[in-house]
Amino acid sequence: MQTIVVKFGGPAIATPEKIVQVAKKVIKEQAKGINLVVVVSSMTSIRRDLRQFAAEITDEPSKREMDALISTGAQMTSSLLALAIQEQGGKAVSFSGWQAGIQTNETHRNARIDFVDIERIEQHFEFGEIVVVSGFQGISEAGNITTLGKGGSETSAVALAIALNAERVDIFSMVEGIFTADPQIVESARKLPEISYDEMLEFANLGTQILHPRSVELAKKFNMPIVVLSNEQDVEGTLIKGDVSMEKNLLVRGVAYESDIIRLTIGYDSYETASLAEVFSVLAEHEINVDIIVQAVIDGVKPTISFTISKEEFAEALRVLESSKLSLGFSFADFEVGLAKVSIVGSAMASNPGVAARMFARLGREHIPVKMVSTSEIKVSVVVPQEEMVRAANTLHDEFNLAMKEISIS
Amino acid sequence: MQTIVVKFGGPAIATPEKIVQVAKKVIKEQAKGINLVVVVSSMTSIRRDLRQFAAEITDEPSKREMDALISTGAQMTSSLLALAIQEQGGKAVSFSGWQAGIQTNETHRNARIDFVDIERIEQHFEFGEIVVVSGFQGISEAGNITTLGKGGSETSAVALAIALNAERVDIFSMVEGIFTADPQIVESARKLPEISYDEMLEFANLGTQILHPRSVELAKKFNMPIVVLSNEQDVEGTLIKGDVSMEKNLLVRGVAYESDIIRLTIGYDSYETASLAEVFSVLAEHEINVDIIVQAVIDGVKPTISFTISKEEFAEALRVLESSKLSLGFSFADFEVGLAKVSIVGSAMASNPGVAARMFARLGREHIPVKMVSTSEIKVSVVVPQEEMVRAANTLHDEFNLAMKEISIS
Repeated sequence: MQTIVVKFGGPAIATPEKIVQVAKKVIKEQAKGINLVVVVSSMTSIRRDLRQFAAEITDEPSKREMDALISTGAQMTSSLLALAIQEQGGKAVSFSGWQAGIQTNETHRNARIDFVDIERIEQHFEFGEIVVVSGFQGISEAGNITTLGKGGSETSAVALAIALNAERVDIFSMVEGIFTADPQIVESARKLPEISYDEMLEFANLGTQILHPRSVELAKKFNMPIVVLSNEQDVEGTLIKGDVSMEKNLLVRGVAYESDIIRLTIGYDSYETASLAEVFSVLAEHEINVDIIVQAVIDGVKPTISFTISKEEFAEALRVLESSKLSLGFSFADFEVGLAKVSIVGSAMASNPGVAARMFARLGREHIPVKMVSTSEIKVSVVVPQEEMVRAANTLHDEFNLAMKEISIS
Repeated sequence: MQTIVVKFGGPAIATPEKIVQVAKKVIKEQAKGINLVVVVSSMTSIRRDLRQFAAEITDEPSKREMDALISTGAQMTSSLLALAIQEQGGKAVSFSGWQAGIQTNETHRNARIDFVDIERIEQHFEFGEIVVVSGFQGISEAGNITTLGKGGSETSAVALAIALNAERVDIFSMVEGIFTADPQIVESARKLPEISYDEMLEFANLGTQILHPRSVELAKKFNMPIVVLSNEQDVEGTLIKGDVSMEKNLLVRGVAYESDIIRLTIGYDSYETASLAEVFSVLAEHEINVDIIVQAVIDGVKPTISFTISKEEFAEALRVLESSKLSLGFSFADFEVGLAKVSIVGSAMASNPGVAARMFARLGREHIPVKMVSTSEIKVSVVVPQEEMVRAANTLHDEFNLAMKEISIS
C-alpha cells in the first residue's frame, strides 16, 4: 500500500474548527486506499502563549527546558486532530515526536534528525489508523525532548516520508504552490507545475516563506518528491522534484524578493585587524542571520565588510557588534535602512553567464539603483531601495518572459 | 542524603510570576542539603483551554487522545518551573511522567501506577539538580501517555516519594493544614498538628478538597508521611502519618461538611425487579459519584433506594436513570435538593458506640432535622437541610470540644 505524508501548520490548524476541516480532508485522502501520516505543528496562539510565559520568567532560557516547553504545542494539535478524525468517523492515533520514533542529536532548539524508527507507525497502519505526528520535535539518545529549529515541521514530514519509503510529502499551505513571482506584487505571476529541488532551495533562501530550505535539502538528498498545495482551494499545487521535464529551456524560473532588509557596514583601519570569520562567528552565536556579504577596500588599504540582515534582527545585531567592538577590532560601523532584495532564480542559469548582465542592463534602463549584488550557480540577487522593489520584480518578471506558459508533455 | 518530594498545584502555579515564587521556595528547600523532587500540575487556565478545545471538536473524546492532550499541561508547568529555578540561580531539570519513569497500566483517564523507575531521577540528583516532574501522568507498557485521574498529582508525588525512599511528601496548598472544621464556617476551628491516615481518608472522602483519598491510601500502604502546608504562609502544617501520638483520648477529631448535595430516591414495585448493583453500575459507567446510600422498604414490600450525589452531577444522573428506566425496572424516581452533609471524624470512635448517639441527641436538641445517616468505623455523617449546615457544624464542633488544645508531647 502506498504511503503519503501530509503536513498542516499555521492558519490551517489555528482553531478547533479549522482542525475539524483538516480531519475531514485527511479522512478523504486515506479513503483513497493509502497509509497516511499527518504531521502538525503547534497552534500559533499556543506557541505565542508558551513563549510569553517563558519570557515572563527568564531572558535567557535554557535550551533543554525551552524544548520541553515548546514541544507541548504540537502535541496538543496532534491529539486534537486525532480527536477530530475520530469524531468524523475515521480512525486515528496521535504521537509525540518520541512516540513516532524521531531520534535526534542532543542539539537543543536546533536538533538534527539521526534516524526514524518507523516500527510503531507501521503497527498502527495495520490497524487502519491515520497516524498524526507532532512535528518540529524528536528525542535525543539521552531521552531528552528536542526541537528541530526553523523549518522543523516540514523537516519532520520529509524525514518520516523517507523512513517510511513514502510516495511523496504534501505540504498544505496558505498558497497554491510556487509562483514565478509573488502574485501580490507581480500581476502576471504564474504558478509553476514543477520546480527542481535546487531552484526551490534558492526560492526558499530568498525569503519565500513557504518551505524552509532545510526540508528541501533533506528531500533532495533522498529524492523525496514534495508537493506544495493550497489548504483552502482544491487546485493542483507545485511538485518539487529532482529533474524538471521540458523546462531547461527557460533560463529564469522565477523572481523572488525580500523587503525590509538593512545593510550593515563595518570598517577596519588595516588588514591586520580585520577578521571576517570573527564578525560572523559572533553574529552566528547570537543567532543573527546574515545574508549577502560583500567585502570591499576603501583607500586601497582600509577594508570594509558589508552584509544584509533583516529588520527584525537589526537592533540585536547592533547591540552584539557594539559589545564586541574591542575584540573584533573594527574602527566604525555604518548602516543603511530601507532596502529590499530582488532575485532571479533558474537552474539553467549556471551555463549562461549572460543572465546577470541582462538583469543589470534592464535595471539600469529602468533607473533602478543596485546597491549590492550576490550570485550563486542558479540565482542572482540585487539589493535595491525598498521603494523600487515592486517595480524591479515586475520589470525582471517581464524581462525573462515568466508569464509565458511553459511547454509541458505531462 | 535525605530526599523530599514536594507538590505544587492550583493557585500556587497559576501564573509565571507565581511559578517564580515557587522556584525561590524550592531553591531554599534544596539548600538545606537534600535531594528534591518537585511535582507540579497543569496551570488551571491551560487545563481549561485544552478541555475547551477538545469540547469544540467532540462530545465523546477517546480517552487515549484526551490523555495525550491533557498531559501537555503539566509538562508546560514543569519546564516553566525548571526555567524559573535556573533563572533564580538554581539547578533544575524537568521531566514528563514517562521521563520520570512513572509506569502505569493502560487505563486511560484513570491509570494506576504500577511502578516508578527512579534511575534517571537519581542520576540528576548526582548533578545537584532539583528534579521537576509533571504530575498526574505516566506511561503505559505499550508506550501510551496516561493520566492518573482525580488526585493524580498528589498520587504522583506520593508514588515518587515511596520509590525514592523519601523522608516525606510536602503538599503545598491554599490552606495551612487540616483543621478540626472549616475555619470559614466554624470560628473556633483549630489546625491539627497531626492526623492519622485513616482520619485523613475520612476527611478527604467528606469533601475536604485538600487531598484526594487515593494519595492518602497510597501513603498509608507504604507508611509515607505527608505534610499539608500553606503555599502562602510560612507556618507549620499538618503531618499525616500512621500513629498519632497522645490524641487517642479525643473521640472526635474534626467536623467536615459538603454543601449542595441532592438526594435521589428510586422506587420499585417489588423485590423481584429491584437491583441495587445494576443502578450503581449504570451510574458508575457514566462516572457519576454516589455518596451515601440508604435502602428502605415502603408498605412492607416496595423497596426504595436513596442516595446522594453532588449538584453538578444531578442533571447527568437524571438523564442516565431516565434512559435506563426500562432495563433497571424501577417504577418511580424522586429527588430532594437543598441538602448538605455534616460529618464527625475520629479514629477512636470505633470503640465508642455512644458517639453517634451523642451527635443525634445534640442535633435533636438544636432542632436540626436529620434526613439520612451514614456511618463508618471512624466517622458519622448526617444529611441536613442546606440552611442548617453551618449551625450543625458549629454545634458539633462545640459538642465534641474540638476547640480545646490537644495534649502533645512532641
